[in-house]
Amino acid sequence: MALIVQKFGGSSVADIDRIRNVANRVAEYRHRGDQVVVVVSAMKGVTDNLIDMAKALMPVPNEREMDMLLSTGEQTTIALLAIALQSMDIPAASLTGAQAGIVTDGVHSKAKIRNITPKKIHALLDAGNVTIVAGFQGETSEGHITTLGRGGSDLTAIALASALKADLCQIYTDVDGVYTSDPRLVPTATKLDEISYDEMLELASLGAKVMQSRSVEFAKKFGVIFEVRSSLNDNPGTLVKEETQSMEDVVIRGVSLDKNQAKVTLVGVPDKPGMAARVFQQLADSAINVDMIVQNVSHGSNTPATDLSFTIDKPDVAKAQGVINDMRGDIGFGEALADEAIGKLSIVGVGMRSHSGIAAKVFEVLAAAGVNIQMISTSEIKISVVIGIDKAEEATRAVHDAFLS
Amino acid sequence: MALIVQKFGGSSVADIDRIRNVANRVAEYRHRGDQVVVVVSAMKGVTDNLIDMAKALMPVPNEREMDMLLSTGEQTTIALLAIALQSMDIPAASLTGAQAGIVTDGVHSKAKIRNITPKKIHALLDAGNVTIVAGFQGETSEGHITTLGRGGSDLTAIALASALKADLCQIYTDVDGVYTSDPRLVPTATKLDEISYDEMLELASLGAKVMQSRSVEFAKKFGVIFEVRSSLNDNPGTLVKEETQSMEDVVIRGVSLDKNQAKVTLVGVPDKPGMAARVFQQLADSAINVDMIVQNVSHGSNTPATDLSFTIDKPDVAKAQGVINDMRGDIGFGEALADEAIGKLSIVGVGMRSHSGIAAKVFEVLAAAGVNIQMISTSEIKISVVIGIDKAEEATRAVHDAFLS
Repeated sequence: MALIVQKFGGSSVADIDRIRNVANRVAEYRHRGDQVVVVVSAMKGVTDNLIDMAKALMPVPNEREMDMLLSTGEQTTIALLAIALQSMDIPAASLTGAQAGIVTDGVHSKAKIRNITPKKIHALLDAGNVTIVAGFQGETSEGHITTLGRGGSDLTAIALASALKADLCQIYTDVDGVYTSDPRLVPTATKLDEISYDEMLELASLGAKVMQSRSVEFAKKFGVIFEVRSSLNDNPGTLVKEETQSMEDVVIRGVSLDKNQAKVTLVGVPDKPGMAARVFQQLADSAINVDMIVQNVSHGSNTPATDLSFTIDKPDVAKAQGVINDMRGDIGFGEALADEAIGKLSIVGVGMRSHSGIAAKVFEVLAAAGVNIQMISTSEIKISVVIGIDKAEEATRAVHDAFLS
Repeated sequence: MALIVQKFGGSSVADIDRIRNVANRVAEYRHRGDQVVVVVSAMKGVTDNLIDMAKALMPVPNEREMDMLLSTGEQTTIALLAIALQSMDIPAASLTGAQAGIVTDGVHSKAKIRNITPKKIHALLDAGNVTIVAGFQGETSEGHITTLGRGGSDLTAIALASALKADLCQIYTDVDGVYTSDPRLVPTATKLDEISYDEMLELASLGAKVMQSRSVEFAKKFGVIFEVRSSLNDNPGTLVKEETQSMEDVVIRGVSLDKNQAKVTLVGVPDKPGMAARVFQQLADSAINVDMIVQNVSHGSNTPATDLSFTIDKPDVAKAQGVINDMRGDIGFGEALADEAIGKLSIVGVGMRSHSGIAAKVFEVLAAAGVNIQMISTSEIKISVVIGIDKAEEATRAVHDAFLS
């Protein structure tokens, strides 16, 4: 008898039929004798409806009250799933995040889990129940309802798996697992049987939509092994876990392309200490997320100056241009160029640590494909390059097939 | 500075505009310096939608899970009302029933309030907030969410008014208050400035839709004076309170007509001890609510037998006939006649205690109107008669105008 934590997202519980499907899947595990804790999100669309109502009253509603409001979404799902299981003669009981003992800090709308006291969960499991917990929510030690922000239900599942010392944590989604690349883009992409936390983190930050970084970070910190798998079929998914010796034998785990970034270049930034700090502090203060940063020597000038390039999310370009214009006189740079016609191609793998020459091979493949590299950024297990959008997909396939086919 | 508890039902908060209206009304009291606790129901239609979803999964869903499900309805409203108030720059904060300290017994779907520890309400009020509490719900001492059943939000308001020692409790509804009779039926009906708990209880049990008996009973038990008034205008409502000397000077407080009952007559029930007990025990076991009971001497028969008549809710007639057929052989009565073409006319007033001859005058008025009386039932402050439906409305007007015009 194993203790399993299963998490189902909003599209898996979008309507009564899908809730019944989830109940069927939970029942399979229950019938083979496992103890099952299920974490669910709000039914797809419910959260957006609630947000619309609140915004009709006030453009920026109070976050404590938004948490009170949005937490009803998951609470509705847990009760319906419990009823669906009971209709199949499977004992089941639901718990809100607060009832499940999930205590958070007081930062409404993006609270962090402080600790979990799963007394009620254990009691319900011991009494033979499938125990259903509302994802995405908790309460403060003073008893205020909080929500965990984006990806919060994944986090609930992984944190519960850790607190309960579960044998297995399954994150059900609408894809079969983690792929070597986006299969819609790279026909030769294959599903990975396993991936390390660090690789998964890099992929998450690179725009692979499977999971938010914070859940993976939490899993890594507490050593929670979890499986990403499809709620639509019975295929085994991808295990996410600490890296193993055999993982290091594989040089490259995956290749991803992020087409949602834009490149900004400030030309002729004075070559003095503190210039970059001021630029990026201003952008951070305006909540503009900066990803890659590259500083180049400036093209011929009398005063010492450099070119500063960085990438930001495309929707932030207009906002960033406003911020940049405001500081132009103060800092004293020349032109500010924004280029939205770029793609960020990244290659990820813990094997890079022990294999040399990977970057050289990447550049060689891109050169052979006639692709010009605009920016380069590397980490211990990742190489990212910014390239023109017109050749980005072709380049992704070329790099994927050079390493992974 | 007064402490006021205000309760608004589902139709008063049916959409965003109406929630804004409620916020405006709360704001009036807040602006004159009062401390305000607001109790709200689920938005009209929300509870029915939730019930429909649950019943799509299972015809008779588990009551613990139904409480988990339905309690989201009020939770949604409290958050939206808090946001509406905040949008008007009025500090406000919401609390679920559990957070408000409302502790109930464990009878899911119709829990009774055990006690209230309004620590959080006091803290929020002291910090200057309008405090909004979800009606209809509480939690057990073990932390399970419960709901209070029909009329539960009124009960929440009255119980909170008691626990908080509020100066005033206002129950907002879609009528101006309690009338001497239904104004749609009796054009001469007038609104009462005040009414005693006992009179209100009799009217509640007689089908006056203003409030459920249990809330009035609770108010009576704890001496909570409350006002029933309209959420659509500023007219003063009806104060419900302990009877006073001046109330007793008024012979009749109100006249009501209940057209939702049917009369059942069992002909030739053996005149032996225990027969009536067996009949009504069987009906009670089948959850059929019996109101008036009259036993007549039987029309000419050799063995001692009586006719037994009683009234039940019209929707229960078919079910009752099944139950009656099942026990016919066992008990040994003859025909069972059901008559749905009846109305129950009731006259209520604490003044009856000190005035004699009221019943005689009622019968006289009915006789003058050519109305035949089928059943009579009296209490200390009430006279009810069952009459044919065809003359019921005319009879109601006649009795009302004889006593109250």
